[in-house]
Amino acid sequence: MPGPFSLYTRFIMQRSPIKHCRNCGEAVVYLIPDDGDTKPRAICPACETIHYENPLNVVGTVPYWGDKVLLCKRNIEPRRGKWTLPAGFLELGETTAQGAARETLEEAGAQIEMEGLFSVINVARVGQVHMFYRARLLSDHFDPGHETIEAQLYAESEIPWEEIAFRTVKETLERFFADQQRGSFGFYAGDIN
Amino acid sequence: MPGPFSLYTRFIMQRSPIKHCRNCGEAVVYLIPDDGDTKPRAICPACETIHYENPLNVVGTVPYWGDKVLLCKRNIEPRRGKWTLPAGFLELGETTAQGAARETLEEAGAQIEMEGLFSVINVARVGQVHMFYRARLLSDHFDPGHETIEAQLYAESEIPWEEIAFRTVKETLERFFADQQRGSFGFYAGDIN
Repeated sequence: MPGPFSLYTRFIMQRSPIKHCRNCGEAVVYLIPDDGDTKPRAICPACETIHYENPLNVVGTVPYWGDKVLLCKRNIEPRRGKWTLPAGFLELGETTAQGAARETLEEAGAQIEMEGLFSVINVARVGQVHMFYRARLLSDHFDPGHETIEAQLYAESEIPWEEIAFRTVKETLERFFADQQRGSFGFYAGDIN
Repeated sequence: MPGPFSLYTRFIMQRSPIKHCRNCGEAVVYLIPDDGDTKPRAICPACETIHYENPLNVVGTVPYWGDKVLLCKRNIEPRRGKWTLPAGFLELGETTAQGAARETLEEAGAQIEMEGLFSVINVARVGQVHMFYRARLLSDHFDPGHETIEAQLYAESEIPWEEIAFRTVKETLERFFADQQRGSFGFYAGDIN
């Protein structure tokens, strides 16, 4: 059974400190490697493996249907019950566009045609980079997965702005509607502090 | 002493299979988690930690001085002796722009003013996303670090195209010079197969 905390659990697990070597299981020590590095890393005293940790990419779409945008009400922590654009962690073996399309199918069951990369927003505080693609909806029928309570189309004036789950989603939506009104889509890069 | 293989070693180590739990050191098993997931993950039978692996971001700059661009001759594997734009793995706690600026300082010792995000190129085969920013050089004096044999300015006609280390660098350079000739810089998203 899918639990309500699966994505949150993933996040926490990915960021818990490295205590043991992934190669041999020995307890690691934190030291600055002797190879010109400048930061402490988890190093295995037995097999000398150096363990690096790096930011994660979260990829998603802005699925649009005329002047409306598809939002998903989250069924998982964090921000359960809040509204988001379909998005999730990029997986090995897929491009950012493929990952964004996969998440849109998994979370909203939406049929889309992928368009251009629209926003790249850093959330350095939590070690994430969020990327959203524009995506043209091919149907207004949705079939949300277990991570979503409901999927719904919203015009700009109807968006529940106080109930948006993440600031990267809010910024992406604001830019998207502004560009849509202007009649020309640009590309937006930004940071969330 | 910094070794000539440090970055290559980092890459290999980051992609070696997970054999032991980072939390408790127990040997992991590969199973599809029972939480709605669809892919096998390294799971610890003792403490139940699920270990995820995700693509890495490589961030760098196109440092320009008039109509010339700064390239670095690599002193490390892979592609030792080949030319590249300054770039490296994004670190936790920094934005993509901060990481790109750091790598430019570390690899070229170049003084720059960061400008806009210019290219985002997926290399899904090796689980990487490469991002390059335009960066205006504030001086034509460089002080390369240990990962670089030499740093040199090249006009488009002088670029050693057959000696460029990575396809993401080649594509970024081609787009940069095309946009520079046109007199207007856009944004380029692409994939390397």
